[in-house]
Amino acid sequence: MQAILAVLMVGAIFSSLSAAETRPLILMPLPASVQMKTGQFVVDPSFTVGIQGHSDELLQHAVEVFLDNLRRQTGMSPLDLRIVDAAHAKLIVHCDGPSKAVQELGEDESYSLDVSADGAKLDAVTPLGVMRGLQTFLQMVRTTSDGFAVPAIAIQDKPRFPWRGLMIDVSRHFIPLDVLKRNLDGMAAVKLNVFHWHLSDNQGFRVESKKFPKLHELGSDGFYYTQDEVRNLIAYAHDRGIRVVPEFDMPGHSTAWFVGYPELASAAGPYQIERKWGIFDPAMDPTQEKTYKFLDAFIGEMATLFPDQYFHIGGDEVNGKQWDANPNIQAFMRAHGMKTDQDLQAYFNTRVQKLVSKHGKTMVGWDEILRPDLPKDIVVQSWRGQDSPAAAAKLGYRGLLSFGYYVDLNWPASQHYAVEPISGAAANLSAEEKQRILGGEACMWSEYVSPENIDSRLWPRTAAIAERFWSAQNLTDVHSMYERLQGVSRWLDWLGLTHNSSYGPMLRRIAGSNDISALETFTDVLEPVKDYTREEIAAVEATSLTPLNRVIDAVRPESETARHFTDLVNALIVGQADANAKQEIAMWLSRWRDNQAKLPPLEKQSLLLQEVVPLSEDLSTVALTGIQALDYFNRGERPPDSWTEEQFVALEQAQKPKGQLLLMIVPAVRELVAASSGQRAPLPQK
Amino acid sequence: MQAILAVLMVGAIFSSLSAAETRPLILMPLPASVQMKTGQFVVDPSFTVGIQGHSDELLQHAVEVFLDNLRRQTGMSPLDLRIVDAAHAKLIVHCDGPSKAVQELGEDESYSLDVSADGAKLDAVTPLGVMRGLQTFLQMVRTTSDGFAVPAIAIQDKPRFPWRGLMIDVSRHFIPLDVLKRNLDGMAAVKLNVFHWHLSDNQGFRVESKKFPKLHELGSDGFYYTQDEVRNLIAYAHDRGIRVVPEFDMPGHSTAWFVGYPELASAAGPYQIERKWGIFDPAMDPTQEKTYKFLDAFIGEMATLFPDQYFHIGGDEVNGKQWDANPNIQAFMRAHGMKTDQDLQAYFNTRVQKLVSKHGKTMVGWDEILRPDLPKDIVVQSWRGQDSPAAAAKLGYRGLLSFGYYVDLNWPASQHYAVEPISGAAANLSAEEKQRILGGEACMWSEYVSPENIDSRLWPRTAAIAERFWSAQNLTDVHSMYERLQGVSRWLDWLGLTHNSSYGPMLRRIAGSNDISALETFTDVLEPVKDYTREEIAAVEATSLTPLNRVIDAVRPESETARHFTDLVNALIVGQADANAKQEIAMWLSRWRDNQAKLPPLEKQSLLLQEVVPLSEDLSTVALTGIQALDYFNRGERPPDSWTEEQFVALEQAQKPKGQLLLMIVPAVRELVAASSGQRAPLPQK
Repeated sequence: MQAILAVLMVGAIFSSLSAAETRPLILMPLPASVQMKTGQFVVDPSFTVGIQGHSDELLQHAVEVFLDNLRRQTGMSPLDLRIVDAAHAKLIVHCDGPSKAVQELGEDESYSLDVSADGAKLDAVTPLGVMRGLQTFLQMVRTTSDGFAVPAIAIQDKPRFPWRGLMIDVSRHFIPLDVLKRNLDGMAAVKLNVFHWHLSDNQGFRVESKKFPKLHELGSDGFYYTQDEVRNLIAYAHDRGIRVVPEFDMPGHSTAWFVGYPELASAAGPYQIERKWGIFDPAMDPTQEKTYKFLDAFIGEMATLFPDQYFHIGGDEVNGKQWDANPNIQAFMRAHGMKTDQDLQAYFNTRVQKLVSKHGKTMVGWDEILRPDLPKDIVVQSWRGQDSPAAAAKLGYRGLLSFGYYVDLNWPASQHYAVEPISGAAANLSAEEKQRILGGEACMWSEYVSPENIDSRLWPRTAAIAERFWSAQNLTDVHSMYERLQGVSRWLDWLGLTHNSSYGPMLRRIAGSNDISALETFTDVLEPVKDYTREEIAAVEATSLTPLNRVIDAVRPESETARHFTDLVNALIVGQADANAKQEIAMWLSRWRDNQAKLPPLEKQSLLLQEVVPLSEDLSTVALTGIQALDYFNRGERPPDSWTEEQFVALEQAQKPKGQLLLMIVPAVRELVAASSGQRAPLPQK
Repeated sequence: MQAILAVLMVGAIFSSLSAAETRPLILMPLPASVQMKTGQFVVDPSFTVGIQGHSDELLQHAVEVFLDNLRRQTGMSPLDLRIVDAAHAKLIVHCDGPSKAVQELGEDESYSLDVSADGAKLDAVTPLGVMRGLQTFLQMVRTTSDGFAVPAIAIQDKPRFPWRGLMIDVSRHFIPLDVLKRNLDGMAAVKLNVFHWHLSDNQGFRVESKKFPKLHELGSDGFYYTQDEVRNLIAYAHDRGIRVVPEFDMPGHSTAWFVGYPELASAAGPYQIERKWGIFDPAMDPTQEKTYKFLDAFIGEMATLFPDQYFHIGGDEVNGKQWDANPNIQAFMRAHGMKTDQDLQAYFNTRVQKLVSKHGKTMVGWDEILRPDLPKDIVVQSWRGQDSPAAAAKLGYRGLLSFGYYVDLNWPASQHYAVEPISGAAANLSAEEKQRILGGEACMWSEYVSPENIDSRLWPRTAAIAERFWSAQNLTDVHSMYERLQGVSRWLDWLGLTHNSSYGPMLRRIAGSNDISALETFTDVLEPVKDYTREEIAAVEATSLTPLNRVIDAVRPESETARHFTDLVNALIVGQADANAKQEIAMWLSRWRDNQAKLPPLEKQSLLLQEVVPLSEDLSTVALTGIQALDYFNRGERPPDSWTEEQFVALEQAQKPKGQLLLMIVPAVRELVAASSGQRAPLPQK
């Protein structure tokens, strides 16, 4: 019922104060239930918070973090916005009891928030619920003619799934602690609650081990987190209601371990840190007892360092080549009646699961670990297909969905948003089985991200995934999602996230010039190629030594401008564009047509611009086609078929990637051409 | 000779490779001698540095910091750009010997840098010289059609003054450590070498004292640096060739001390941390021995914490009211034959100087400490006038110039740039006396700066002051300075400085909207009022609790757009504007005239925009006047005198501050009106 209410209200959540205050609220994830009231609550420097009911250190920290964020959003002094006695507070936080000392899966995160002209009241069962409610409050603080204010409102809210995660791979490119912290702030802002830290892979082992120091000393190029830094990050996450689940990928994806400890591998060393991307042969030797002795001690050390109940052992993408080539391993397999490498890996997993369990933890692994002989308390993270969590649930295992949430694939937010954990095979599960689908995780694999551009690969799109995990299943209005996503994107700027701010400096570096206005008009409608096309069409194979300073690394995964233009064109074609929209279509097309002339010769300006020269030419040509098609369309005159055919051929060419980039106005112009010629519009490629 | 060479070359430092490579080099401070050669040296991921001659930890750190900056500028991987054996290095750093363990005033900072197509060689006497030369190298790395490259060049360079400082007041508004660090990076980038840390004042005592913990516990609102943080900052500065001179202001400006230790004051307490700005009555009691006992222990503690030889005791702005009202102090003065409060302060200074000296340090103080009875090794920092360092030098004291370098007064860079330490009375000093003028310091008093906008108050203008301290005295070409200043401003973005990036988010907060294009057209030509006018015309007195989130806090101290427009108009009037320039003048005027119509009703949109409504109206009106004047001017037709008079009256009104802001296009439009009417142009107010 609550869910239905919320959906009905999308697009209608306006405060009703005055003509000037009709901007919609930017709430994301959308709460379960929202009721607008009359009036607004002004937030000025005298704003205070009081804590009622249960109080503890975590709650105090949560309120301090909230006030800090509120000061950033409003520009108020660190001496303003105080915590005071609840009797005199403007915002009263009431909490029933404590959260667990170590945050647990499934703790109550519900809250209700009631704002009236005089003040506000936030009620929650636990400090976690308080944190979620405070984020909702922050999202509603707006500039008005009376100053900063929150509209009078009543909200009841709770998450749909208990495991709402983001995985960041810090092995392929090392991501420094401060960058992780600002992204934890981003996670908290959209109510994500699990940071899955992919700490080891072929390209780097990123955490200090006191028991096996050659892991980080030889396996990291010097880029690793000390144990103090790990503790510091965990505390930071804890204050924001985020669990930290470490992943140490084994038995494959583990070359970096073998640089210091080649004896763990299934073939003789020596090993080097891997510089390339892909799947590699090295794998731990599952047949020797010393492997398990090492892992026992190692897991023991890490189980102490990372307090979370869950411990991720990876387990994906073992190609088995080292196993196949090792006679001892082959003999072991024969002796134990194992027919396939999968059998051997299942044996390994069973052994490792016992070690994880011995150290008090619950094992998590990728799809491949799923074998019915493992105990039922493990969690399977699905990356290979949407139906595999359902298959796991049927077998009695709990599952997480990551298939469809790989943000490194540069999909549009709408494509991630359409992926629903309880759909396909999962939709037919029993209620009990559905409960085993814990939620999901967005995944940020880091072949092509650096500290400079990781934020723009994560945000704002991850907020749409976060809404999928938190909000009602039937919330599927893409238009509303994008409207709110744009608002959230700017709001996240206050957390120091650089997804918006890094674009200009990166373009200026590429151009070697401070005046990038014409270049920006052009790059604003480019997107990186999707899925794994970047590898597939690379002229030179990328490695961890390759600079990430190209146009593809600067442009956004999803072009706001191109999406907006596509929306306008779609409206035009179905006869729903008003005069302003029509004028805007024409304005964009003529701006793009003329842009090429405003750019200096790109190939002379910068080596980094040479690969986009054909795209800039395409932009002008495609825009000209659009202008002609628009003209036909507006005059209601059908163009000659030869012209239409010619345009489709040219647009087909323009739609192909160049410099591993896509010109995102092509599909809309195709539609315009099709509409002008009375043909059915071809489906846009996106 | 070298200086003259450099001046001749300003505006002519172009690399001579190809048509595309005629962009001028952005060197600031301009080196003493620069010779362009043919070709360029390409900086790609295989770039390496080798250290020849002397090497030590400081030098290693310097090279690592350099490589880190180079990676940021170019977007290369942390695995690229290595330190290798000098025999195989692309850039060879040769250093004769070590710097002092604690950086000293007057150490050799000279370097020579020779870049050819094959590689580069940097020679210096000390690691400090290496650091300065590496910054010059970084400034020359540019995007070209062959990739990142430095033009072939030969540079010899050394500073004019040995003390090139920046003072930051962290008392009136606390500035967190990370903000200070990025500003230290900015200092190093423009070769400043002294960070003067104004650590205590009426509004806050900002450093942990283990001997007198109530200083920071009660005097800081919880905003202070721990001693570990202080050491951390000093080490960070040391790696960048920057000395750290602490200032503890006494006997006035010391209310924050008295909150914890009222017994030090000249009147009974209790005391509160001061929230207002200005000069206040509380002052230490110079007549009681316990004051000196306290200061002895305190200075002893701080002399150990801060390794620099110099120790700043403030000493400014004692109003004497507490002394006059205290009968014991009056009796003491009579008993010791002191006639004025200045005599009493001189007695205090003499006693404090002995304590500073006892702890091995050399005393620095503001103007007021200058009395001939102090020993000659003290340093006087002049803030009240340009001639006072000369007066001090004549008496045998060393002096620093800060008068003319107060960046909080929102002057244009050109005004600071015109202030020359060796001018006025100082120009007539003997060579020996001139040597006593050690240099100067830019000063950032922090009544109106927060961590959010301090960078935009400091940069890029401080770079012009840094050039004044480093480069030749006869380098006075303002056009060249501004051209290079704009380049440096964008280059500083790579250090994480937020002077450019904070503007957009602050405007979006003010507007409560993501679309700020029209607002920006308007605010781009606004500047804060100058000097102390902000206080003088404030409707409500500002305090440390006042949010710094107004338009005045967001706009830049100097409008690039207005300066550029003024340059165009000046060129037009003297007949030196080409067709493009004429078109640009007309474009700007019509954009400004039409801008008001593009803005939503500001007063309804945001409380924070209400005060700028009249300015937005003025922008349209003034632009219309400009369009009319331009029309008369272009037609060579003299407008009716009545029209001219009317415009002058209206422009006089438009030139008055509103919302404590100035509309910076008014002076140029006045000139245009004057020119069109054949009158002499009135001097622009700026």
